[in-house]
Amino acid sequence: MSLTVVGSIAFDAVETPFGKRERMLGGAATHFALAASFFDQVHVVGPVGDDFGDEEMAVLGTRGTDVSDVERVTGGETFFWAGRYSENLNVRETLDTRLNVFADFEPKLSPASRDADVLFLANIQPDLQLGVREQCERARFVAMDSMDLWINTARESLERVIGRVDCLILNDEEIELLTGAPNLVTAANEVLRMGPDVVVAKQGKYGAALFTADDHFWVPAFPLQTVIDPTGAGDTFAGGFVGFVAAHGDQPLTEGLLRRAMAYGTALASFNVEEFGTERVARLTADEIPERVTQLRRMTHFEDAPVELRD
Amino acid sequence: MSLTVVGSIAFDAVETPFGKRERMLGGAATHFALAASFFDQVHVVGPVGDDFGDEEMAVLGTRGTDVSDVERVTGGETFFWAGRYSENLNVRETLDTRLNVFADFEPKLSPASRDADVLFLANIQPDLQLGVREQCERARFVAMDSMDLWINTARESLERVIGRVDCLILNDEEIELLTGAPNLVTAANEVLRMGPDVVVAKQGKYGAALFTADDHFWVPAFPLQTVIDPTGAGDTFAGGFVGFVAAHGDQPLTEGLLRRAMAYGTALASFNVEEFGTERVARLTADEIPERVTQLRRMTHFEDAPVELRD
Repeated sequence: MSLTVVGSIAFDAVETPFGKRERMLGGAATHFALAASFFDQVHVVGPVGDDFGDEEMAVLGTRGTDVSDVERVTGGETFFWAGRYSENLNVRETLDTRLNVFADFEPKLSPASRDADVLFLANIQPDLQLGVREQCERARFVAMDSMDLWINTARESLERVIGRVDCLILNDEEIELLTGAPNLVTAANEVLRMGPDVVVAKQGKYGAALFTADDHFWVPAFPLQTVIDPTGAGDTFAGGFVGFVAAHGDQPLTEGLLRRAMAYGTALASFNVEEFGTERVARLTADEIPERVTQLRRMTHFEDAPVELRD
Repeated sequence: MSLTVVGSIAFDAVETPFGKRERMLGGAATHFALAASFFDQVHVVGPVGDDFGDEEMAVLGTRGTDVSDVERVTGGETFFWAGRYSENLNVRETLDTRLNVFADFEPKLSPASRDADVLFLANIQPDLQLGVREQCERARFVAMDSMDLWINTARESLERVIGRVDCLILNDEEIELLTGAPNLVTAANEVLRMGPDVVVAKQGKYGAALFTADDHFWVPAFPLQTVIDPTGAGDTFAGGFVGFVAAHGDQPLTEGLLRRAMAYGTALASFNVEEFGTERVARLTADEIPERVTQLRRMTHFEDAPVELRD
């Protein structure tokens, strides 16, 4: 079994109250691949420029991730994003976005990438997502991300691709924006009617929620005393979640399996925010991960017992 | 065993995207008492004006709540608050606050209120909270709420009363404001060093977190398709939480007991937001509550199992 991700590979300049980086490896596909590769063989599809070095490519190729579909555009520069976070990290201000090689990106998938069992369409223009989705006819599980920009400027295209995937992973407020529903439960149910069987609402520092036809599941973010840089947390979460699903293709995609995938995504995301960009996850080892899942389970567990109530 | 709450009894004017009320029963002590009275005998202490009618007093006295310490100030008007909620209910704008009889409130506790086993100091000026706390020497568990206003204008008094209670229940952002810590985990740990053994962070629509010396617990808000008015949700949560603790005075105050209290607080708060003000909880019956706690447990549960990770 294998897993293909299509999305941005980037250089980020990030400033948080705890420090800054002028230029670090980033991008949705990068964060996703670093997390997902703990679970399965990953193929990364995305463009980079001449400025993308061997060192960055080596990080992208961690745990055997296939980078042969990383397209190097001669004479081009890698996608660049600069942003600054507020005091409590809640608000992110974009200072600069240079699409560079991403402006003319036309995803070309090799047979290995096309034949993947699982596909993740990271946040790119929805028509591109649809094109990739159509190339991967054999995928048994296709998940996608998006953003407010596409909801506001390319809604028809976005709805078309949402209708063709199994799982939408999106920020809670974007799910509400997409549907116009006044709360997340109603909004997620509307997305389920648009096609996907699974909706995952990312809630930032508050965690994530899973919606299927019959059930809900809510998991908090893993509590940390040190949060340095949230950049890429959502994509790292998605990498853990989708990677877990990809690695369990021999089992039916039950609610229980999806919930465990949510827990692993949460654990992976918690490592990501402990340092800038990919720094922490790039040196994360497999033995560090299960402990956080176990702790997460302990921190959300309570015993139900009959209680005498007054009436 | 019994439970005393000291705090505001009010008339609220509220506008949400789903409707409005020009004048409805409200106030922290009111919402708290309606929830806590499912668990224990409640004594309410707070002032009202001539405009407070028998009908409102009857609601306050639901399930045998003792209202004999509700002080009726002749010639005065009841505390009045007017507010408006944003489209997604996330932002609340205060349109009017008239302290009225609350301006000169000096809590006077009858022996029955003073001798309560458990005390809740709702959000009032911290020197008043301290005065009440000192009157209730026998209380085995004292919890308190507060707000950003007192953090910013009466910090010394506030810290003094925090140092004298067992439990601080506060919005997550106010806990961060109080301590200046950059995230909730660090902030809650700092509050634990200020005196309380228990810190509860209210996270609005995202739920609540429990911090003790050795442990954390996170519970989501109960997911609802219909949210009409969040006013009083925090006090209703506190009423369920503190009420549960009060009703279990025969058991040691373990982490497990506190977690179940969190679940009951969450269930109670979920009823509160389904209609305006006290409308839903005023007609809530005891048999409706445990089902939500059971559902909450089901929606947060996942099985942990060994996973093969790549390295």
